[in-house]
Amino acid sequence: MEDLSLPTYADVVAASERIAGHAHRTPVMTSRTINAELGAEVYFKCENLQRMGAFKFRGAYNALSQFSAEQKQRGVVAFSSGNHAQAIALAARLLGMPATIVMPHDAPAAKVAATRGYGGNVVIYDRYTEDREQIGRDLAAKHGYTLIPPYDHPHVMAGQGTAAKELFEEVGELDAFFVPLGGGGLLSGSALATRALSPRCKLYGVEPAAGNDGQQSFRTGSIVHIDTPKTIADGAQTQHLGNYTFAVIRREVDDILTASDAELVEVMRFFASRMKLLVEPTGCLGLAAARQLREQLAGRRVGVLISGGNVDLPRFSELLAG
Amino acid sequence: MEDLSLPTYADVVAASERIAGHAHRTPVMTSRTINAELGAEVYFKCENLQRMGAFKFRGAYNALSQFSAEQKQRGVVAFSSGNHAQAIALAARLLGMPATIVMPHDAPAAKVAATRGYGGNVVIYDRYTEDREQIGRDLAAKHGYTLIPPYDHPHVMAGQGTAAKELFEEVGELDAFFVPLGGGGLLSGSALATRALSPRCKLYGVEPAAGNDGQQSFRTGSIVHIDTPKTIADGAQTQHLGNYTFAVIRREVDDILTASDAELVEVMRFFASRMKLLVEPTGCLGLAAARQLREQLAGRRVGVLISGGNVDLPRFSELLAG
Repeated sequence: MEDLSLPTYADVVAASERIAGHAHRTPVMTSRTINAELGAEVYFKCENLQRMGAFKFRGAYNALSQFSAEQKQRGVVAFSSGNHAQAIALAARLLGMPATIVMPHDAPAAKVAATRGYGGNVVIYDRYTEDREQIGRDLAAKHGYTLIPPYDHPHVMAGQGTAAKELFEEVGELDAFFVPLGGGGLLSGSALATRALSPRCKLYGVEPAAGNDGQQSFRTGSIVHIDTPKTIADGAQTQHLGNYTFAVIRREVDDILTASDAELVEVMRFFASRMKLLVEPTGCLGLAAARQLREQLAGRRVGVLISGGNVDLPRFSELLAG
Repeated sequence: MEDLSLPTYADVVAASERIAGHAHRTPVMTSRTINAELGAEVYFKCENLQRMGAFKFRGAYNALSQFSAEQKQRGVVAFSSGNHAQAIALAARLLGMPATIVMPHDAPAAKVAATRGYGGNVVIYDRYTEDREQIGRDLAAKHGYTLIPPYDHPHVMAGQGTAAKELFEEVGELDAFFVPLGGGGLLSGSALATRALSPRCKLYGVEPAAGNDGQQSFRTGSIVHIDTPKTIADGAQTQHLGNYTFAVIRREVDDILTASDAELVEVMRFFASRMKLLVEPTGCLGLAAARQLREQLAGRRVGVLISGGNVDLPRFSELLAG
């Protein structure tokens, strides 16, 4: 990948124009139950209701729509077992270009099927013996594909920031804003929108307690690498932040918090039983952290980003049965 | 109950003013997947996202807000094992009046707890040996409570019609509109709004195949009584339409259709997996019927009313595991 400069809020604005009419402008929901529990006004930005069920479509579409004619003709390659795969496959189909997705041999059949359903050419690799980044780079070199990584790319980051932009435009400034953190694409993009539209808002990234590399990185000032964490938040099982994402996060974010799997299950149950929303564990990180800060949030206006809703129904039932 | 005249669209308009700021103006959602499946434009009015999880709050609040000062002081009584109980209890609390709810001894503990949580005084009766309507009337006579039935009341019907009014105001006229049918409160109210705002729209009531008393009544021209039907659509297990609701339905509705429990489960799975919405079986009736009319609906603009989302999570899991 050529060196690109760090994205700015102007890039988020440009992204929102590119994705208009292609991505959903997702609803902002409220719950009197949670407002009473926290003594606050809470606004949920529902990216579980985004196309293909997660915010990832925003960044993928923003990145692919900036391809040159030659890049489009050759196509895109991505590696992902999750929402990024489907996002790239769908965006590529809409933009009329071929997409190759490198997925692990043990990826859920439903996700492989969904990616193929969007027209993606799926290449399976062995998670234990092969390196997906190397496979992606080899395919790119051999066929002239453009590699779009899941988070560490300025165009992806700018696209992800459009969800927060929509939230602030709809509800005005906030006192605190909680955003799930995996590799940092969503958090860094959200940070650009937050600093432009609600500069005094406290911005929190939230990651699984089992894998707090982001918190360690934020507090020590350099990117910490960890083993793949064991957590139900499969959208946030990243081993490290990216260079681009960390540069924005360390500059703009107020703190990184963590939530346990047990807290995520409780939030998942709350969303389903009280708000009638299906939310994947990673999408529950924001509210789980807000609940921890109950005393500080009393009387405040609070934003919570629900990042996605892609959890298989049998898995959903199993998690709630606990 | 004194004799009241049949409600008109003017009553729906007045109801929408009474409930403004108390009931949610629920979102209208769309799904590219279902649009592709039906070859139509489908608009879902999401009353599963209404307060207490179902449209019932609209009618309850509209009815209770018209009580005289003396009626308010004495309070309301209602009998229901389901959403009407919670709707009356919540509306009564908001309007500052006492509420007594007569519930069967085998009502789900969660529903009894929710009704008490809204401040309702719950009276338990034995479903097999006692008559809930008689208990309700006795309590009303003894304490001066006003009895509000779950559907057969003009103020309840007018309140329920506000959901359809909001839908047409938001998306304009439609070619066809599918509404769940139990006792007919929602369907009759929806009919008033439909004939005023989209007069040429085909309006369909949809009830469980196991209990098609509404269809029989509509086709024979007089109210048919049946035994409590065995169906997963617990919000539509009524034994007969009401006098008020049938008078409107026979005049304004185009047809009554039915859906099997198996069709409802498939729709419930679709809502959860593709639209990330939790919908109770009764709320799935509309889409189940629309799927049956696929050929007629091609190229049309179609409304589907999702009536509620109050299904216990273990029950939800069990139904989907099927």
